[in-house]
Amino acid sequence: MMKKFINCPKTLLVESLTGFAKVHADIIDYDADQKVITRLKGSAQPKVAIISGGGTGHEPLHSGFVGVGMLDAACPGEIFTSPTPFQMEAAANRVENGAGVLFIVKNYAGDVMNFEIAAEILTCENASVLVCDDVSLPKDHSAGRRGVAGTLIVEKIVGAAAENGADLATCKALGDKVSTVTASMGVALSSCTLPALGKPTFELADNEIEMGVGIHGEHGCQTQTLTDANTIVDQLLRTIYDDLGLRENQTILLHVNGFGATPSMELYLVYEIASQFLTTRGIKVVRSLVGNYTTSLDMAGCSITVTCLDEELISLWDAPVHTANLHWG
Amino acid sequence: MMKKFINCPKTLLVESLTGFAKVHADIIDYDADQKVITRLKGSAQPKVAIISGGGTGHEPLHSGFVGVGMLDAACPGEIFTSPTPFQMEAAANRVENGAGVLFIVKNYAGDVMNFEIAAEILTCENASVLVCDDVSLPKDHSAGRRGVAGTLIVEKIVGAAAENGADLATCKALGDKVSTVTASMGVALSSCTLPALGKPTFELADNEIEMGVGIHGEHGCQTQTLTDANTIVDQLLRTIYDDLGLRENQTILLHVNGFGATPSMELYLVYEIASQFLTTRGIKVVRSLVGNYTTSLDMAGCSITVTCLDEELISLWDAPVHTANLHWG
Repeated sequence: MMKKFINCPKTLLVESLTGFAKVHADIIDYDADQKVITRLKGSAQPKVAIISGGGTGHEPLHSGFVGVGMLDAACPGEIFTSPTPFQMEAAANRVENGAGVLFIVKNYAGDVMNFEIAAEILTCENASVLVCDDVSLPKDHSAGRRGVAGTLIVEKIVGAAAENGADLATCKALGDKVSTVTASMGVALSSCTLPALGKPTFELADNEIEMGVGIHGEHGCQTQTLTDANTIVDQLLRTIYDDLGLRENQTILLHVNGFGATPSMELYLVYEIASQFLTTRGIKVVRSLVGNYTTSLDMAGCSITVTCLDEELISLWDAPVHTANLHWG
Repeated sequence: MMKKFINCPKTLLVESLTGFAKVHADIIDYDADQKVITRLKGSAQPKVAIISGGGTGHEPLHSGFVGVGMLDAACPGEIFTSPTPFQMEAAANRVENGAGVLFIVKNYAGDVMNFEIAAEILTCENASVLVCDDVSLPKDHSAGRRGVAGTLIVEKIVGAAAENGADLATCKALGDKVSTVTASMGVALSSCTLPALGKPTFELADNEIEMGVGIHGEHGCQTQTLTDANTIVDQLLRTIYDDLGLRENQTILLHVNGFGATPSMELYLVYEIASQFLTTRGIKVVRSLVGNYTTSLDMAGCSITVTCLDEELISLWDAPVHTANLHWG
């Protein structure tokens, strides 16, 4: 029997979004008909409209990042299901104010297809950034690498640039740059349970973990025996470290992301181990983020994301942000 | 086999706190010897030092609420175990700056005893506020009602008053007032697993929930059959509603708190149902907070907290706060 707070799988998302809209009515507006979340305080000056979206079940991504300094709109699809091109079009029509639209798209076939259709429908100037930061998959993977927790970092940095008045080509180039210097890898201690399915999407024995998972309850690259946190973090970070080709004195952002059911005490433990791994190798961790930001429903597990930072990226990361789930400055 | 990111139960807390201190080095300072977390940006003017603490495993409570506008210090005990009077004394000595100390204490025998000892040891002026918001227990319960998720609300409001320059007697009276008008009740879908124990603290069948739980993995007041979210929320809120004697037009803060493993989608669903329950009865929900704030390790479940607000309390709730886990204004 599925253990969730739920009335009915069919109404869960709408009821939840309605609640979200009430709680954050000072930051966002939710159009229930068009299924679009837009930021309440628009910009008086023309600015590039930053729009993201994707299947739900990853909250606070993306709805929790709509607001000043980050996303202008988010299109929430059904759970783990792409939003439609019409949602994306509606979002664009609501927030475009003369400087064009930039879509930030996680690399999944459904999302890519629907954002491409939306881009063709739109009459305004637009461009897209594809996020594919999951280094558990090889670079030449047939479907390309998946977009996972690094998406937040692209959204934050590009959102800050747009807020500062950067034009569409600049925002697009910046998003591509951040995506290129960002690498993530995740591990699951448990699967997650889709409300419509009512049971875990895969089974793990009591002594097993799933290495290299994405955020949709799919199998990872390898089922392994549960071991201590040091060993797990070492495996995640070696992959990231090699993939990014990190060198001594590189300044980075270190993001430890919980998948939903892992206590913050464990996430900070993972951070501490990761921080030591990197510091020992002369890497400078200059910015950090720890918490549940890109989740996979009720999955226990976490991912580690590293983004190489230069002065420009640090300044954009530090820029003020006022959303439901990221708030500083 | 216990599934956690962990090296060793004995070192988990220290490693985790070390990571926490690194991530939030712009907000807090962690003294590993004295096991005290203090706010980095002290007040130039004398202000009442607000200190809380208790067993860990409830993060972000209390460590995540140290900072400008809320706590001056937090004393983290071992998991679900009271901190010592010496931690509290060390915290007071670090942050007291001439206006006295106010301890905010959750009502558990160990915490109460140790904070009382600390109060006797201290040479500076001090007072305590006892939080006992768990209305799943009767008012005349032998040990008194437990302090649960309402503690955050006391800490936020008293912290704002202290920041504004309120004196010790005023802060103490305000804390008592907030505690009196705050009621909480929780429900668990699963137990939690203490790292030192390595197994769930109680067993629930696949179709069972535990109504009226606290935050230490103890049994609640009743094991019930799992039912829909509407029914569960109705039961929680009826108890709170009756206990507070809510009347039409009362303005309230509605706080839905996750115990650790419940996805935010479900928490916002619970919020939406609770909001409708209250609105139907003419209650005005004027402030809201939804998320994992007072957790119980990896427990699945949530609690609902209602605080009756007047203009003074609204203004103090809205006052700026800059901590690791509450940040606005």
